[in-house]
Amino acid sequence: MLVFYDAPYSGNTWKVRLLLRQLEIPHQVVKLDLFKGEARTPGFRARNPFGRVPFITEDDDFSLSESNAILLHLSRGSFLLPADPRSLAHVHEWMFFEQNQLELNIGLPRIFRKAQPAEAERLDSYFRPRAVSALKVLERHLASREWLAGSYSVADIALCAYTQLAPDAGHDLAAYPSVSAWLARIRAQPGFIELE
Amino acid sequence: MLVFYDAPYSGNTWKVRLLLRQLEIPHQVVKLDLFKGEARTPGFRARNPFGRVPFITEDDDFSLSESNAILLHLSRGSFLLPADPRSLAHVHEWMFFEQNQLELNIGLPRIFRKAQPAEAERLDSYFRPRAVSALKVLERHLASREWLAGSYSVADIALCAYTQLAPDAGHDLAAYPSVSAWLARIRAQPGFIELE
Repeated sequence: MLVFYDAPYSGNTWKVRLLLRQLEIPHQVVKLDLFKGEARTPGFRARNPFGRVPFITEDDDFSLSESNAILLHLSRGSFLLPADPRSLAHVHEWMFFEQNQLELNIGLPRIFRKAQPAEAERLDSYFRPRAVSALKVLERHLASREWLAGSYSVADIALCAYTQLAPDAGHDLAAYPSVSAWLARIRAQPGFIELE
Repeated sequence: MLVFYDAPYSGNTWKVRLLLRQLEIPHQVVKLDLFKGEARTPGFRARNPFGRVPFITEDDDFSLSESNAILLHLSRGSFLLPADPRSLAHVHEWMFFEQNQLELNIGLPRIFRKAQPAEAERLDSYFRPRAVSALKVLERHLASREWLAGSYSVADIALCAYTQLAPDAGHDLAAYPSVSAWLARIRAQPGFIELE
């Protein structure tokens, strides 16, 4: 049985929660409290060397970290992952862009603003232009497309996670009309769930 | 014909240069000077909306950004990409970890130390503990393994790129003996090339 180590608040766990729902994959859930350090205990780290969630185990021989790696693994053979090599390459491209250019530049200021406001202010000149640059890349791409890579895919799920949280990091999504319309299309997909 | 838009200095372009050499893939090279902004001209951005290198084109219908997406695409069917779904998932896991936890936390202070020393100092308390945390995850994993995900793969190429550059960001790799031994194994692979 697939076991999904989940936690509220994180955009990365939300990705996996949404995928499991949209693909109707049977699984058990173990909920962790990140603010109590439950992903960094020695017991959890013995199984999960990355010490982060989301995390899944399929049996004693297989476990997996990294939200986007989990999305790619669990969507194999489904409508959420294209089989054509070129479309698949574009799915990968957007998912790496997400982890490198978008997720940190929105996710970290979001947490700092909540937990360390002085650090949020000190690092604003680092995070803000990078987040704006990433949102502009998305806006240009989506101006002439419905989805990031052909049809609705795990790339849209991955990029949606922190894009929808941009206001929590001080960005007004009204400045990105094509991004906003794309977020609305994702929210209209069957099985959509809100980020807790 | 495959065209590879390359630039010196970058660890991300080095990944693709090494892969093309190790898989002996015929290609043309277009060299850009990043410090002159040659990846951000309107002409280049019309073809490459990400405005970054590495970047490849295969024909008028297909181009691809993001170093790790390029590695996954070009290594299809080769010894550098496992076919087994579980091994492939671990390759993905390490490659997303690289873009999120390692590349920026070493690559950016490396550039700041060269071009903006005051900014390097100001952001040191942000980058340093994150880079150390990533290097410790690698060290623990490699203490009992030769390669990141089974046999030598694109995951090793991807993680090697910025790990080998850690000294340029102020980290002494002597503190990470298993990482150092792994880097030596990579350097001993046929076709290895130095980062320019």
